[in-house]
Amino acid sequence: MPDAQNRRIVLAARPKGEPKPSDFRLETAPVPEPADGQVLLRTLWLSLDPYMRGRMSAAKSYAKPLEIGDVMVGGTVSEVVESKLHGFAAGDVVQGYAGWQDYAVSDGTGLRKLDPGLAPVQTSLGVLGMPGMTAYTGLMNIGQPKPGETVVVAAATGPVGSMVGQIARLKGCRAVGIAGGPEKCRHLIEDLGFDAAIDHRSPDMPEQLAQACPKGIDIYFENVGGAVWSAVFPLLNDFARIPVCGLVAHYNDTAPPPGPDRLPQLMSAVLSRRLTLRGFIVGDFASQAEDFGREASQWLREGRIKYREDVVDGLENAPQALIGLLQGHNFGKLLVRVKQ
Amino acid sequence: MPDAQNRRIVLAARPKGEPKPSDFRLETAPVPEPADGQVLLRTLWLSLDPYMRGRMSAAKSYAKPLEIGDVMVGGTVSEVVESKLHGFAAGDVVQGYAGWQDYAVSDGTGLRKLDPGLAPVQTSLGVLGMPGMTAYTGLMNIGQPKPGETVVVAAATGPVGSMVGQIARLKGCRAVGIAGGPEKCRHLIEDLGFDAAIDHRSPDMPEQLAQACPKGIDIYFENVGGAVWSAVFPLLNDFARIPVCGLVAHYNDTAPPPGPDRLPQLMSAVLSRRLTLRGFIVGDFASQAEDFGREASQWLREGRIKYREDVVDGLENAPQALIGLLQGHNFGKLLVRVKQ
Repeated sequence: MPDAQNRRIVLAARPKGEPKPSDFRLETAPVPEPADGQVLLRTLWLSLDPYMRGRMSAAKSYAKPLEIGDVMVGGTVSEVVESKLHGFAAGDVVQGYAGWQDYAVSDGTGLRKLDPGLAPVQTSLGVLGMPGMTAYTGLMNIGQPKPGETVVVAAATGPVGSMVGQIARLKGCRAVGIAGGPEKCRHLIEDLGFDAAIDHRSPDMPEQLAQACPKGIDIYFENVGGAVWSAVFPLLNDFARIPVCGLVAHYNDTAPPPGPDRLPQLMSAVLSRRLTLRGFIVGDFASQAEDFGREASQWLREGRIKYREDVVDGLENAPQALIGLLQGHNFGKLLVRVKQ
Repeated sequence: MPDAQNRRIVLAARPKGEPKPSDFRLETAPVPEPADGQVLLRTLWLSLDPYMRGRMSAAKSYAKPLEIGDVMVGGTVSEVVESKLHGFAAGDVVQGYAGWQDYAVSDGTGLRKLDPGLAPVQTSLGVLGMPGMTAYTGLMNIGQPKPGETVVVAAATGPVGSMVGQIARLKGCRAVGIAGGPEKCRHLIEDLGFDAAIDHRSPDMPEQLAQACPKGIDIYFENVGGAVWSAVFPLLNDFARIPVCGLVAHYNDTAPPPGPDRLPQLMSAVLSRRLTLRGFIVGDFASQAEDFGREASQWLREGRIKYREDVVDGLENAPQALIGLLQGHNFGKLLVRVKQ
């Protein structure tokens, strides 16, 4: 790629609390050369997701933390610019994990070829991708929805929450979504078909949630924690299931909050109400990718599930967009259009 | 029953914190008369179990609380004194829930005839009864032990804990028991075949537990909470399972403990280590009673599981025995021999 440069965004510093722009650094480097058995990819779309906050910290979690100076990780849709790898040709569009950069080389591991005729390619990062499959596998395997049950999810206009609610509806459940602001709540009801929508900014959110769940809560798909958990907790029915998929309200915590210590109260409720809490990441259910792809594509084709995208133009704007995501500023699946 | 009196122990007051003798009252009443379709039972053995503390409180739980003046609930082995019920005859020995009293009438609901030739009848209150089945169903359904895994249980010389450890061993797991004092720890190793035993009174209990679990903890059968949970928590492996069966360390709590609030830390671990916490009571697995009975009786006959009883003589001593149980003073399955 003569003259071309690879812009990439690296981790400049580990955030203390909320990430700030100076925790990221935009660098420029030569475009890498693919070796034999590799492809050169040019990033079209970069997915921004809450898990990225975790990778910026040094704490051990389900994935290795980034080192300072590493390119930020991220799911991407890319076009193949040059191929020295059997089975891939220039012009192919692929989903993979090229990270926050214009170009990357890959030996094909984890790459999935996309058919642009079937669905917009960026849906492989949202409704038909990791977020959609997170919703599907967590809800189906851990939530185990039964007709007539009540399912509650927060960040409900996001790519995971919106799928949780819509799949819950398809399974015959009452879907109650929690989101920030009247516009998002309107979207939940009018566009996505949720049965009820609660604005988490309302001072009486807990009372509103209780009213929206007259028969209690059977499944709470946990992706935020914080005040939403506190409102959900007293409403959990006997034998309620809680797939724990994210805790975005706590990702920026720097210390345990002050007391009282609510751990014994939680354990008592786990016992007396026979609750199930189970953490998961989508990779734990990798073997169900085919089921998910078949079922979700069909729902999408039939118009039974809908999705919304929040597109930011330009790789250089990714840091601010991730900071906003962690504050709940996005409205729909947050994507960076890297190639204009 | 001319001249006979029915002694019974009722709830006199709801305990504040630890129960005290004045929370119970010994009453005397006429022996009840069985109506048609009823049997008159005379209590031989009364089982004392930690769940009884919960029933003494007004708080809603999985079972209705006792009212002040109610006879204390409890599992019993009784002999049929008089039968006006088809299928029962005077002299039959039955397991049921006659409570803390000498005599009771029953319409047969929940009564199970025992064969005194098969095993000592009081084992129907311990190793072959509710505690044994609690251990079996919680460990098998929620714990799902796999050979080579490490299983930790506290109150390990009690009727539930001792079965958890012994079944874990039968399933090819490493069994680590926590108990109070060197005598109980010796019993765990020498009599019950645990791989390691930790005295929870040791100041360095957390370090000892870590040493006893060099590959971490895959299953923690939770029946105590408190300091044991705090020691177990950092050792839990990815995908660890935690059947929550009891929290005896908290039954006397009168208020939430001071901070910091450890709830967010727990939820973060549930997520990052993909933990499963699930509360249960033995009744949730009632359909497995036959499997349990068959398998446990066979293990007992073959000498592959052992049990220990802690017998208190006299109904009038039941209150003090329950108070001691909640402080960990019993050593083995705590039983009251009601009929001398």
